[in-house]
Amino acid sequence: MHYRNALLASLLLSATATLAQNTALQPEAETAEPVQPRQVILIIGDGMDEQQITIARNYLHGAAGQLLLDHMPLRSAVQIQTSEDRVDGKPVYVADSANTATTMATGAITSIGRISTSAGTDQDLTTIAELATAAGLRTGIVTTASVTDATPAAFAAHISLRLCEDSATMEEIRYRDIFLGECRADLKAVGGKGSIAEQLAESAVDVILGGGSAHFTPLAEGETVSTLDLARRNGFEVVTTATELAQATSDKKLLGLFAPGTMPVRLQGEDGREAENPERSWLNQLHPYIGSVTLPPPMTCEPNPEATGVPTLRQMTDAALEHLASANDRGFFLMIESASIDKQSHERKPCGSIGELEQLEEALDSALAFAQTHPHTLIMVTADHSQAAQLVPYESLFAAFPIPVYTPGKLARIVTPEGSHMAINYATNNFIMEEHTGAAVPLFSNSEGVGRIPPFIQQSQIFAITREYLGI
Amino acid sequence: MHYRNALLASLLLSATATLAQNTALQPEAETAEPVQPRQVILIIGDGMDEQQITIARNYLHGAAGQLLLDHMPLRSAVQIQTSEDRVDGKPVYVADSANTATTMATGAITSIGRISTSAGTDQDLTTIAELATAAGLRTGIVTTASVTDATPAAFAAHISLRLCEDSATMEEIRYRDIFLGECRADLKAVGGKGSIAEQLAESAVDVILGGGSAHFTPLAEGETVSTLDLARRNGFEVVTTATELAQATSDKKLLGLFAPGTMPVRLQGEDGREAENPERSWLNQLHPYIGSVTLPPPMTCEPNPEATGVPTLRQMTDAALEHLASANDRGFFLMIESASIDKQSHERKPCGSIGELEQLEEALDSALAFAQTHPHTLIMVTADHSQAAQLVPYESLFAAFPIPVYTPGKLARIVTPEGSHMAINYATNNFIMEEHTGAAVPLFSNSEGVGRIPPFIQQSQIFAITREYLGI
Repeated sequence: MHYRNALLASLLLSATATLAQNTALQPEAETAEPVQPRQVILIIGDGMDEQQITIARNYLHGAAGQLLLDHMPLRSAVQIQTSEDRVDGKPVYVADSANTATTMATGAITSIGRISTSAGTDQDLTTIAELATAAGLRTGIVTTASVTDATPAAFAAHISLRLCEDSATMEEIRYRDIFLGECRADLKAVGGKGSIAEQLAESAVDVILGGGSAHFTPLAEGETVSTLDLARRNGFEVVTTATELAQATSDKKLLGLFAPGTMPVRLQGEDGREAENPERSWLNQLHPYIGSVTLPPPMTCEPNPEATGVPTLRQMTDAALEHLASANDRGFFLMIESASIDKQSHERKPCGSIGELEQLEEALDSALAFAQTHPHTLIMVTADHSQAAQLVPYESLFAAFPIPVYTPGKLARIVTPEGSHMAINYATNNFIMEEHTGAAVPLFSNSEGVGRIPPFIQQSQIFAITREYLGI
Repeated sequence: MHYRNALLASLLLSATATLAQNTALQPEAETAEPVQPRQVILIIGDGMDEQQITIARNYLHGAAGQLLLDHMPLRSAVQIQTSEDRVDGKPVYVADSANTATTMATGAITSIGRISTSAGTDQDLTTIAELATAAGLRTGIVTTASVTDATPAAFAAHISLRLCEDSATMEEIRYRDIFLGECRADLKAVGGKGSIAEQLAESAVDVILGGGSAHFTPLAEGETVSTLDLARRNGFEVVTTATELAQATSDKKLLGLFAPGTMPVRLQGEDGREAENPERSWLNQLHPYIGSVTLPPPMTCEPNPEATGVPTLRQMTDAALEHLASANDRGFFLMIESASIDKQSHERKPCGSIGELEQLEEALDSALAFAQTHPHTLIMVTADHSQAAQLVPYESLFAAFPIPVYTPGKLARIVTPEGSHMAINYATNNFIMEEHTGAAVPLFSNSEGVGRIPPFIQQSQIFAITREYLGI
């Protein structure tokens, strides 16, 4: 495919020492044996820690039930590392999705907010997708977020700040009146690579599927066309509906954008409800041990009507696998993200996180089916960082005490299909969005990971394991 | 040992169907092969979930460091199950230490607060320690809690409520003026087995080490002697100091009580500090987005002077292993609990939890050394349930917003030995003690567990795996 040549040249120019050692760049040995394609499918549940997994398991399969994840033959734990934004910066104990995706994509530890750039020095870090492309493998990125969001971005773009998602955000990013940052040093006018959307549009990634069409409508920097047209010019076929996705040809690169931003989640709280503050009587506001407190009424989860007709993560996964595997004797690297486990947890919406974890399970099911017919497929499922939601007692451990005992944060009480009640607490801050948390996260793999992945790894080893498995 | 005979008889009388099938009760086949002793060491970190482990790892070994746990060759996850207190009760999604210890000790799922008795029907459930004794193996219980606390109790006692720790608590348990429960149906006068302390005093357990001497001072029910004297009458040598522990003979049962209640923890916050509420200005109390908020000042962890001279968990573990393995050709079952990971988390004292996890690591180190010289030793390390502490960002993800963003709960900010700052949030309730949480917990094992323990198990399987390994 011609579009790989330009990238290969640019990669070689900026090659790191690591890249220079890349054995896959050597001419293949001439043997009679046909080369067996090898592929890695890395599934990232954003914010999918043990609390999120247990909450989803209880809801979807019951307290004694099992997820597909639970049947995976290998379970490991992943140590997450983050640095201050300077050379030899001290450790930071709680990460964000940008620095953790960078670590998985490049093997390097960096600072919060960075997309495959180095802490302190702002140097581009070569990603596993770029290495795969350079070695002649195909690559894919699938997400329920905007494709320009931190996790997908880190596999194919390099920028100092995750918020610079499109060409309109490079000089100043504001939320209402609040200045949140800029990426002027990354403008093409000063020798940078432009915004995340522009970098994706100009990338060699073979399949990019998710939300984020709004980030492709601004004019590309220095161009008279939109970023979406820039992508078309760079060889991408663009699709925007499930039908178009199903009909896409497989001889062009594929860019699917199915929502303006984050794709709608599958489940929501009854009537859109989220976790709520307990209602405190006047007396209780005088002192928390007197008066009365009314907890939020229990609710069920219900289908989110906005998700109707939008491709599921499984449909996107199936399309990506088809596109990547068709007439491919070199293999591929595919990253699949279930993004809204995290996003719905930030918004204190447990039903949304549950439905999103169900989507991850379906994508995993597709990946496992693919591996059945394609040997040498390593599937890893992990999270990037832990999140705020806590499964707490429906009745306080201290209910015997004749005083109101209640969370100082926000609580959702969910009626589960097996007829019990599950209480979920969000109390990391008083802001409109919860904080992340710092616990190590699980990693699961199929049988190809057994013997390759130890029971405890650093997050950077995901890059190393992927690279070694692909032989690139 | 003569004291086993009476217990064997009583066990056989109350034998469950399971016990009746116990092959180990059959006469051993006469073969030329000497019987190899087999032993299981079950180490329980009470409340030791991934948040607690990561917090301790960061403090003890740094963000890139590893615990001894991380070197264990097998990692699994444990599904925790709890029931309402009735026959066919619905699932309850967050457990306590009593019902989870019961599940590990007996393989049965029960309701909160129960000590090896059945939900709804209050029937005694045969424990792994009782099965081991009946089969001629030795048994041990080691804990940093009172030996009458829920986790140790469930391996050797049967009672409807964990709070009935001694003979003075059977008819009415009050905390200040508040009635918390009673165990009148368990009084010996009506055919019960008495309080937990009395049951331990009359038990066949070979080694019981921990805190809780205060629970052995009341008169035993229907006796003119203290519960401690009841233990002596039942063949226990009683020790109360590290020196006495080191000098204990190994031909008697051993009861070590090294504190009136819970044993003092190793580490505490600077000047005894714990997590504290952010201090809100008057304006901020009008609305949480205005005014100013002062977070608790950072603190170091320091040695707890009260722990001086008290046996460590490692010392108790070493003594128990010596006592259990000496001249023993049948093997043993030993439960070791690091109890205050949980207790200090209830009290919002992260330094205490960290020091207690360090104690667990030391006990594990002793267990691993023992296994080096004693093949056929299965070591499992797990937690009983998850806990409240959350590792949260030291600087909010949303610090760019010019408003105070802070936890609604209580926060501890700890200076780590590697010179960074770690923030730990406690916000499950507004009460004097935090709630448990419901996430699945990790399980680690030595090489004997590889191939025996799948990557995801139900908590009851810990009982089944132990029983199968011991062949009882």
